[in-house]
Amino acid sequence: MGWWQVKSVRTAFQGELGAFSHMAVQQLLGKRAQVIPCERFEQVFRLLAKGEVDAAVVPIENTLHGSVHENYDHLLQFDLPITAETSVRIIHNLIAIPSTSFKKIESVYSHPVALNQCLNFFAAHPHLQRIPFYDTAGSVKMVMNERRPTAAAIASSMAAEIYGAKILKRSIEDDRQNFTRFFLLQRPGDKPLVQTRAERKTSLVFSTRNTPGSLFRALSALALRDLNLTKIESRPLRGKPWEYLFYVDVVADVADPRMRKALGHLEELADFLKVLGSYPRGK
Amino acid sequence: MGWWQVKSVRTAFQGELGAFSHMAVQQLLGKRAQVIPCERFEQVFRLLAKGEVDAAVVPIENTLHGSVHENYDHLLQFDLPITAETSVRIIHNLIAIPSTSFKKIESVYSHPVALNQCLNFFAAHPHLQRIPFYDTAGSVKMVMNERRPTAAAIASSMAAEIYGAKILKRSIEDDRQNFTRFFLLQRPGDKPLVQTRAERKTSLVFSTRNTPGSLFRALSALALRDLNLTKIESRPLRGKPWEYLFYVDVVADVADPRMRKALGHLEELADFLKVLGSYPRGK
Repeated sequence: MGWWQVKSVRTAFQGELGAFSHMAVQQLLGKRAQVIPCERFEQVFRLLAKGEVDAAVVPIENTLHGSVHENYDHLLQFDLPITAETSVRIIHNLIAIPSTSFKKIESVYSHPVALNQCLNFFAAHPHLQRIPFYDTAGSVKMVMNERRPTAAAIASSMAAEIYGAKILKRSIEDDRQNFTRFFLLQRPGDKPLVQTRAERKTSLVFSTRNTPGSLFRALSALALRDLNLTKIESRPLRGKPWEYLFYVDVVADVADPRMRKALGHLEELADFLKVLGSYPRGK
Repeated sequence: MGWWQVKSVRTAFQGELGAFSHMAVQQLLGKRAQVIPCERFEQVFRLLAKGEVDAAVVPIENTLHGSVHENYDHLLQFDLPITAETSVRIIHNLIAIPSTSFKKIESVYSHPVALNQCLNFFAAHPHLQRIPFYDTAGSVKMVMNERRPTAAAIASSMAAEIYGAKILKRSIEDDRQNFTRFFLLQRPGDKPLVQTRAERKTSLVFSTRNTPGSLFRALSALALRDLNLTKIESRPLRGKPWEYLFYVDVVADVADPRMRKALGHLEELADFLKVLGSYPRGK
């Protein structure tokens, strides 16, 4: 862990400075946020729970890779409400020291997931050697430290900016429909850091015994009150065959009278129910 | 691509020999399967579509990481029915050349995701240097080729067996609830390679316009016929705000009269519907 800026909102995230989570922090809180990079997601939650930071930003789902179940698990375990959301488009850039140029590059370092998301680029430039590295932003840091004119990294434009590197090729990812959704978390009772006039959403988790139609009955609590869903996902409870957790996002504030009635009804129908947060809809 | 065994069912998968997908092939088809490792998921689907292999095995969801949306996209695009499913427990092992021992190991190679799933092990052995590598099974192959007594890899027990390496520590992963579910795919009309008396499941994809209650109405087609779901997941259609794809698994054969009626009903309610396959339930 390290400290980056000096003032205001202390925000924990997982990854190196310049990681996509760091971009999410800036999208949510602007440059006023003071960031605390952590190695593990659990650390991020723990720092916020202990009050060592004011906020946390964690990825929750990606359009190519699905939900980050580990973070749903932490949301269940810790009592840290979601107070905002945002989506970051995952754009991969080829990044090197400022004094080099693309034709000098021989090897490209990045996280294997990022390398694998740029296969068309590598097919078009077969002389480039792909070298796996621990982290996307970390690969930029390393390339800058070593100052080799033949080495490049694949990472966010923010990583290039932070480490003073040059972008040789922009947006070299195969799939432009690659977005990650992030949640801003705060401590219960703290004033929400993001205030917008956007319509509001509420994220829920509930479980039902998997008798036929139990999910259908649970959803009736929402549907019969004309509440709209933007996400539903089931997850089997391991060790409890035939029991499921459901993650649901509803377009309504938790204090909306229809939503309060729906939650009361859902409580009757579900074995377990937890409201993870109510927050303004992100872009 | 390479050929491994000489006889019978030619099966494509993504990854190196000894990858977890390769374990899934053996769980589904036994050692009779002749495997064709591919670099990309898309290649796996294409080889099967062109008839260059008889079957394909692809991961579809993981208990920690969620659904592999890329493979759902390929299932939508290609017409290759699911004919079986299986789950593989992801067990990470520390693997090295047979002549070394744990106390000689200084550096550990593996895919960063695998390294990150063994953080408790590394916390207990802080002198071990973690070095990211392209692939879990590939890291065993490399360690065996270089024959350094101080290097180890993290991968499946199958990778140790294939490359003639020794397992120094078994099951060093942090979370034992780490399972990946795989689908066996064949060409339309081919005789299913896996025949069991297990109850049958059907996987569907459908889309609805997101008017309040549209999912609820679609699910009524299943619930009102007492059909049980084992999975439901929504995915926003990018570029089409407020439209969603839903992946649903139903416990019933596609030829079950209730299921046929439900599908007819669902077709009325959904904008788009595709049956991805009907197959015996896996363990």
